[in-house]
Amino acid sequence: MAKSLRLVSAQPEDKPGVVASAVYSEGRRVAEVPIAEVGEWSRRPGHVVWIGLHEPGLALLRQLQAEFGLHDLAIEDALKAHQRPKLEQYGEALFVVARTAQMLDGRIAFGETHLFVGHGYVVSVRHGASTTYTPVRERCEADPGTLSGGEDYILYAILDFIVDNYMPVIEAIQSEVEEIEDCILAVTSSQDQVARLYQLRRDLLRLRNAVVPLVEVCRRLEQPGLPGIDPSMVPLFRDVSDHIRRVQEEIESLREVLAFAFETSLMTGQAQQTEITRKLAAWAAILAVPTAVAGIYGMNFEHMPELNWRYGYALVLTIVATVCGWLYWRFRQNRWL
Amino acid sequence: MAKSLRLVSAQPEDKPGVVASAVYSEGRRVAEVPIAEVGEWSRRPGHVVWIGLHEPGLALLRQLQAEFGLHDLAIEDALKAHQRPKLEQYGEALFVVARTAQMLDGRIAFGETHLFVGHGYVVSVRHGASTTYTPVRERCEADPGTLSGGEDYILYAILDFIVDNYMPVIEAIQSEVEEIEDCILAVTSSQDQVARLYQLRRDLLRLRNAVVPLVEVCRRLEQPGLPGIDPSMVPLFRDVSDHIRRVQEEIESLREVLAFAFETSLMTGQAQQTEITRKLAAWAAILAVPTAVAGIYGMNFEHMPELNWRYGYALVLTIVATVCGWLYWRFRQNRWL
Amino acid sequence: MAKSLRLVSAQPEDKPGVVASAVYSEGRRVAEVPIAEVGEWSRRPGHVVWIGLHEPGLALLRQLQAEFGLHDLAIEDALKAHQRPKLEQYGEALFVVARTAQMLDGRIAFGETHLFVGHGYVVSVRHGASTTYTPVRERCEADPGTLSGGEDYILYAILDFIVDNYMPVIEAIQSEVEEIEDCILAVTSSQDQVARLYQLRRDLLRLRNAVVPLVEVCRRLEQPGLPGIDPSMVPLFRDVSDHIRRVQEEIESLREVLAFAFETSLMTGQAQQTEITRKLAAWAAILAVPTAVAGIYGMNFEHMPELNWRYGYALVLTIVATVCGWLYWRFRQNRWL
Amino acid sequence: MAKSLRLVSAQPEDKPGVVASAVYSEGRRVAEVPIAEVGEWSRRPGHVVWIGLHEPGLALLRQLQAEFGLHDLAIEDALKAHQRPKLEQYGEALFVVARTAQMLDGRIAFGETHLFVGHGYVVSVRHGASTTYTPVRERCEADPGTLSGGEDYILYAILDFIVDNYMPVIEAIQSEVEEIEDCILAVTSSQDQVARLYQLRRDLLRLRNAVVPLVEVCRRLEQPGLPGIDPSMVPLFRDVSDHIRRVQEEIESLREVLAFAFETSLMTGQAQQTEITRKLAAWAAILAVPTAVAGIYGMNFEHMPELNWRYGYALVLTIVATVCGWLYWRFRQNRWL
Amino acid sequence: MAKSLRLVSAQPEDKPGVVASAVYSEGRRVAEVPIAEVGEWSRRPGHVVWIGLHEPGLALLRQLQAEFGLHDLAIEDALKAHQRPKLEQYGEALFVVARTAQMLDGRIAFGETHLFVGHGYVVSVRHGASTTYTPVRERCEADPGTLSGGEDYILYAILDFIVDNYMPVIEAIQSEVEEIEDCILAVTSSQDQVARLYQLRRDLLRLRNAVVPLVEVCRRLEQPGLPGIDPSMVPLFRDVSDHIRRVQEEIESLREVLAFAFETSLMTGQAQQTEITRKLAAWAAILAVPTAVAGIYGMNFEHMPELNWRYGYALVLTIVATVCGWLYWRFRQNRWL
Ligand SMILES: [Mg+2]
Ligand SMILES: [Mg+2]
Ligand SMILES: [Mg+2]
Ligand SMILES: [Mg+2]
Ligand SMILES: [Mg+2]
Ligand SMILES: [Mg+2]
Ligand SMILES: [Mg+2]
Ligand SMILES: [Mg+2]
Ligand SMILES: [Mg+2]
Ligand SMILES: [Mg+2]
Ligand SMILES: [Mg+2]
Ligand SMILES: [Mg+2]
Ligand SMILES: [Mg+2]
Ligand SMILES: [Mg+2]
Ligand SMILES: [Mg+2]
Ligand SMILES: [Mg+2]
Ligand SMILES: [Mg+2]
Ligand SMILES: [Mg+2]
Ligand SMILES: [Mg+2]
Ligand SMILES: [Mg+2]
Ligand SMILES: [Mg+2]
Ligand SMILES: [Mg+2]
Ligand SMILES: [Mg+2]
Ligand SMILES: [Mg+2]
Ligand SMILES: [Mg+2]
Ligand SMILES: [Mg+2]
Ligand SMILES: [Mg+2]
Ligand SMILES: [Mg+2]
Ligand SMILES: [Mg+2]
Ligand SMILES: [Mg+2]
Ligand SMILES: [Mg+2]
Repeated sequence: MAKSLRLVSAQPEDKPGVVASAVYSEGRRVAEVPIAEVGEWSRRPGHVVWIGLHEPGLALLRQLQAEFGLHDLAIEDALKAHQRPKLEQYGEALFVVARTAQMLDGRIAFGETHLFVGHGYVVSVRHGASTTYTPVRERCEADPGTLSGGEDYILYAILDFIVDNYMPVIEAIQSEVEEIEDCILAVTSSQDQVARLYQLRRDLLRLRNAVVPLVEVCRRLEQPGLPGIDPSMVPLFRDVSDHIRRVQEEIESLREVLAFAFETSLMTGQAQQTEITRKLAAWAAILAVPTAVAGIYGMNFEHMPELNWRYGYALVLTIVATVCGWLYWRFRQNRWL
Repeated sequence: MAKSLRLVSAQPEDKPGVVASAVYSEGRRVAEVPIAEVGEWSRRPGHVVWIGLHEPGLALLRQLQAEFGLHDLAIEDALKAHQRPKLEQYGEALFVVARTAQMLDGRIAFGETHLFVGHGYVVSVRHGASTTYTPVRERCEADPGTLSGGEDYILYAILDFIVDNYMPVIEAIQSEVEEIEDCILAVTSSQDQVARLYQLRRDLLRLRNAVVPLVEVCRRLEQPGLPGIDPSMVPLFRDVSDHIRRVQEEIESLREVLAFAFETSLMTGQAQQTEITRKLAAWAAILAVPTAVAGIYGMNFEHMPELNWRYGYALVLTIVATVCGWLYWRFRQNRWL
Repeated sequence: MAKSLRLVSAQPEDKPGVVASAVYSEGRRVAEVPIAEVGEWSRRPGHVVWIGLHEPGLALLRQLQAEFGLHDLAIEDALKAHQRPKLEQYGEALFVVARTAQMLDGRIAFGETHLFVGHGYVVSVRHGASTTYTPVRERCEADPGTLSGGEDYILYAILDFIVDNYMPVIEAIQSEVEEIEDCILAVTSSQDQVARLYQLRRDLLRLRNAVVPLVEVCRRLEQPGLPGIDPSMVPLFRDVSDHIRRVQEEIESLREVLAFAFETSLMTGQAQQTEITRKLAAWAAILAVPTAVAGIYGMNFEHMPELNWRYGYALVLTIVATVCGWLYWRFRQNRWL
Repeated sequence: MAKSLRLVSAQPEDKPGVVASAVYSEGRRVAEVPIAEVGEWSRRPGHVVWIGLHEPGLALLRQLQAEFGLHDLAIEDALKAHQRPKLEQYGEALFVVARTAQMLDGRIAFGETHLFVGHGYVVSVRHGASTTYTPVRERCEADPGTLSGGEDYILYAILDFIVDNYMPVIEAIQSEVEEIEDCILAVTSSQDQVARLYQLRRDLLRLRNAVVPLVEVCRRLEQPGLPGIDPSMVPLFRDVSDHIRRVQEEIESLREVLAFAFETSLMTGQAQQTEITRKLAAWAAILAVPTAVAGIYGMNFEHMPELNWRYGYALVLTIVATVCGWLYWRFRQNRWL
Repeated sequence: MAKSLRLVSAQPEDKPGVVASAVYSEGRRVAEVPIAEVGEWSRRPGHVVWIGLHEPGLALLRQLQAEFGLHDLAIEDALKAHQRPKLEQYGEALFVVARTAQMLDGRIAFGETHLFVGHGYVVSVRHGASTTYTPVRERCEADPGTLSGGEDYILYAILDFIVDNYMPVIEAIQSEVEEIEDCILAVTSSQDQVARLYQLRRDLLRLRNAVVPLVEVCRRLEQPGLPGIDPSMVPLFRDVSDHIRRVQEEIESLREVLAFAFETSLMTGQAQQTEITRKLAAWAAILAVPTAVAGIYGMNFEHMPELNWRYGYALVLTIVATVCGWLYWRFRQNRWL
């Protein structure tokens, strides 16, 4: 543990990383406060400090650790990122990890958010392609009645925002897959589409890895017994839980759809190739007829009566043309051509 | 929450959306009542209000919320639709979401139904391609003895109707798949059938997503402890539960059947192509014989004794015809042709 | 419920449907009794009525309902059939549904059996391709010591008979699959065999749907707490349970075997096609040699010295034959031919 | 039950079937005893009778049933064999079924062992290709300290022997599969190897059916509460349990390995075919060049200036040879040939 | 048991096998001690003996068994290796088996570590390609505050080290697979890449077999009730548990990725072959045109007016060239060539 922290401390630690730091009382913003005072504010009755960080350095995290008494292992996780979604309880404080997703240039960009929630404070730490939580803060500030719920309401609001943002990603993939499916079934699938389906399957697998453990996190939040979660919040967390389960179901469906769309596109691509080869073979078979017949009349035997007929040549040409035409007509009828 | 409600409120809210609104006492219809009075009626002992809505606006839902004290999150769900089937308990009231299915032009059309069930009232909210519940109401009114069971009996009657309506959809798919299977095994599968099997698999996946969570809903309804569900109703809910499980099993079977019918149709389609190419190659091989032989007697060597034979030409033609005939016969025997 | 009963009542209800109706005391047949008296007999201490029905109409079932106090939902199920195997408890009575299977003309024919078991009576209702339970009755009557066990022993005897009859079906499929596997591995699989494997997979899927829920039924029968099941019967039901689980395992194995036999047969079928095409291509390549050489000596250049050689023709024929022979030998060695 | 016993009693019942029958006290062999006295010996304090049978007839089993009070259903199972591995408790006695496996001529040969374990006795019944348990007896007799553990120690020793004998079977398959895998990846897989992989998959499926239920048997033996199993034996049964779980894991791994080795071998076999056809097509394309060119100069037009050139013939031959050589070189470079 | 020990005792037992043997008190190294004294040191209050062995012989293990009172079955396991990861409790002592993994020359090399942990001692036994635990010892000695935690902290430190070392292996496979995926999608997959994907799947399967049982081991270590594990260690073991679960998830993802990369590479490889054959067939079809036409004008009919035309030859050449050019242009447009 000590080692990994030391490794990372080589990064510039004076980079501030603080996006916002405000105190709320009865659902209203009371003050902007410097990090050095947040511990004191969080201990005032009825006051909640809500801090937003973006890829903070070790020094800043150590300062917050001192202010709020955060656990060493949680600080290590928040510094290193690349954690799986989880909910840890350290004494009276909660540590939540979630992964965020958004569509960027046709690929899913993932971010990671770490939430420290304890008596009188919420700290959110963002890593990677995560969108800012400023809209969540604005929406909460616009409705002091609910925000007065305190730190557990803020936790709910952020998780709800994260979960709501999965849906557009899934819908984007769904609509793209449906377009590709139309092409596959019209047997015009191209190599590009196969590659795109492959990419989508890969991205969806990553999305599933981000979402599945969060289902368990939400399930635990709707059950009684966690410190600092008011029983009145249960229906709200149940609602988030319900939505993340719907996200999971959509992912599972989409996985299946992508699996068979991919396999179908590979096989119909193969079928197209085979069909062309078949058509070429049919044409070659038709052309083999004049070649063989002409070969016969190109033989140099002395006694070949037909060669001396007045209309021998015309007759042969006619016969050959008739046979070829008949073959063409039959091949078309049998759908060989 | 507030935000999403506001977004939707841009819709025309004065659209009535009320399909029926009646009060029942001892299983008999007592009166048609306006929405403004339903709360009062529902509180009269022995009276049950049964309201049917179709895609109601926010204003109407807010009015019902005021009358019956419905929960905010349930109202939000009923307005937005696109929920997964579930059973939520808010205090003494139940909120049930189910998805309906029917066959329209060879595709499954899905609808969504939301049921608010509390002391003295049942509100059903329909979205999308759901059929009306008028037949359920008529059948209930025709049998006052059972309808006198009250709000839990109405809940049972609607769920039973929804579950019974899945079966014809499944049977339609089953019979279509069986027809296609006959074609596949007779090796005459066409591209259209492959595409159709693909569509059916997609639809079935959607149906499964609609049905699977409802199994859990029914399972919970047959267990004691839910508010307002009389113990005497348990066998009825157990019957619905039993039927939805049978629906689920049929879906799972059908999924497997479709999976291997689809794969088989793709592979037999491929096999048909390969077979044609093989036949063409066999014909080309037969035709290569006269071509080669004729080529030899078309050479311009000065000393080719056969060329001067009286019946050389006839002999060569005979030999070539014999060889070709023999090849044709062998190829047929070996099933190469 | 009422509606479906009414629909069916259009059938001829005066069709008797009673196969047997006898009273037993201390394991011995005491009397044949008409349906109208069975209730009374069943209430005599130490007497058990055992009734066998085949596709009875509503009137007969209603009569039995009146005699034994059977539950409405059970009567509905027994009339409609197409139930999934299950065990329902209605008060002090049990209602068991099982599906029977037998091999008819190479396909599995399914039947359905419904058993009403209560204090002093057992009623079996057969639907579809189910064999009669006369042999069970005869075997029980031949061993009064065990039959004196009463209604739970009769239930055991019928279930044991049903479960024992699954095994010959499975063995028939197993031996047929093993024959087909020998062909597949000898690379002589035909289209007929592919189609047969497809049919067997379909039938096996249906068999699994019939067997799997029965495992749960048997598991519940070996546990204490069901009304009318004597603790001394537990080892007997455990034995049935053990056998049905073995049937289930055999089905699962067979499913896997069929899945890979089917896929293998499709792929080896494809491989056979490709092999033939390859052989034809090899022959075409051999024949292309004389064609090309002969073509060259068929050119009409004035100055082609070889044409005037005395043994030019013989030399060319020899060279061509040698090259073709050598190609044939190499192709055979490389297993191209 | 009675019926099946009667069916089997047609077998020669005077066939002894007794492999060994000895009494042990304090871990040492005290006497060889006839079957008629085993019951008496088993009831002497501190004495254990250990009997080994091989495919016994009904008479012998009935005699043992009388001596030790064995249960009817267990006797029926031991006579009929073809049971799934299981542990049954009949009063104070245990009945264990296990399946044995050994490699014979490249196929797995299965046997079945039934163990009756009760106060003062152990009876092992072997069926089919099971090896004798003489080595187990010898090893136990060589270590009286452990054998003094009594009937539960003997049960442990036999199960340990059975489980240890699965491992060489698995290792034999593993090493054979690894050899075949080397061939597959070197793209030289033959039809024989495909067939062999098929056989191995089939055998492994049978092995899994033999092993999986035994895991549950061992798990129950390491838990307290079974009659006659001393708590001091728990670590020993836990060790067997641990080994059978390792066997199960190896089987699951091997199943997966075989599944993809098999699929890969089928597909690389197909790829080999396609490659040969491609090469033949490339040669045919090269030979088509001289054929076409020669055809052109074989035309009989009066005015074809090249035909009169002095070196026309040589020029054409040179051009054709150059083009063919260039094609050959390009095809090789593109890996078309 | 006795037998297997005897078998192995043929190995050179005087080979020392001791890598390190030191006593710690309050987190600081107090002394290096010979094996003969370790039991005594371990019983001194506040002292912990930490011994590191590498492939020890039976004599050494027997000596340690005598010093610490280790269990026979654990000694047998430590001698034989090839155990599955597990946690066994023998009285007050724990026995832990874990498998280590590292990347060597592009393949995963597996090792096995056995840990005996009891009051006052930790013994680690390494087998196979396992790296030394010297870095763990050094890191622990550098931080006496944590090492003063005693034997459970040492157990944690070693498990943490093992789990941390899985991640680079997984990352190495991930990056290699991603490179190969780029090739597959650019349709330039070679046979070597198919073989490499096959190898990676095989190795990953082995890695999964090593990791999956360790998840259960870690899960048990984070739960109360194991002897010698201080409750204050729970967060540390929970952290290891969390990391091993992340490793497991990555393995599952990678398995799926490899499965579809492998299947895709086989199918695109097949598609490349088919494409080349198609192109060759297209060229053959183009060349068949001059061959057929030339054949016709090579016929020896007396009356073929075109042969006498002044520009007949030129005309035919022009027509043939035009047709071939047009075919080439069309084939290119249709992507047949
Ligand atoms: Mg972590
Ligand atoms: Mg992960
Ligand atoms: Mg949401
Ligand atoms: Mg996952
Ligand atoms: Mg799904
Ligand atoms: Mg919702
Ligand atoms: Mg859903
Ligand atoms: Mg129904
Ligand atoms: Mg689903
Ligand atoms: Mg079913
Ligand atoms: Mg299924
Ligand atoms: Mg496939
Ligand atoms: Mg039913
Ligand atoms: Mg069913
Ligand atoms: Mg039986
Ligand atoms: Mg199953
Ligand atoms: Mg399989
Ligand atoms: Mg497949
Ligand atoms: Mg049995
Ligand atoms: Mg079995
Ligand atoms: Mg062993
Ligand atoms: Mg199995
Ligand atoms: Mg396993
Ligand atoms: Mg595995
Ligand atoms: Mg072991
Ligand atoms: Mg293992
Ligand atoms: Mg770690
Ligand atoms: Mg495993
Ligand atoms: Mg995964
Ligand atoms: Mg796949
Ligand atoms: Mg596959």
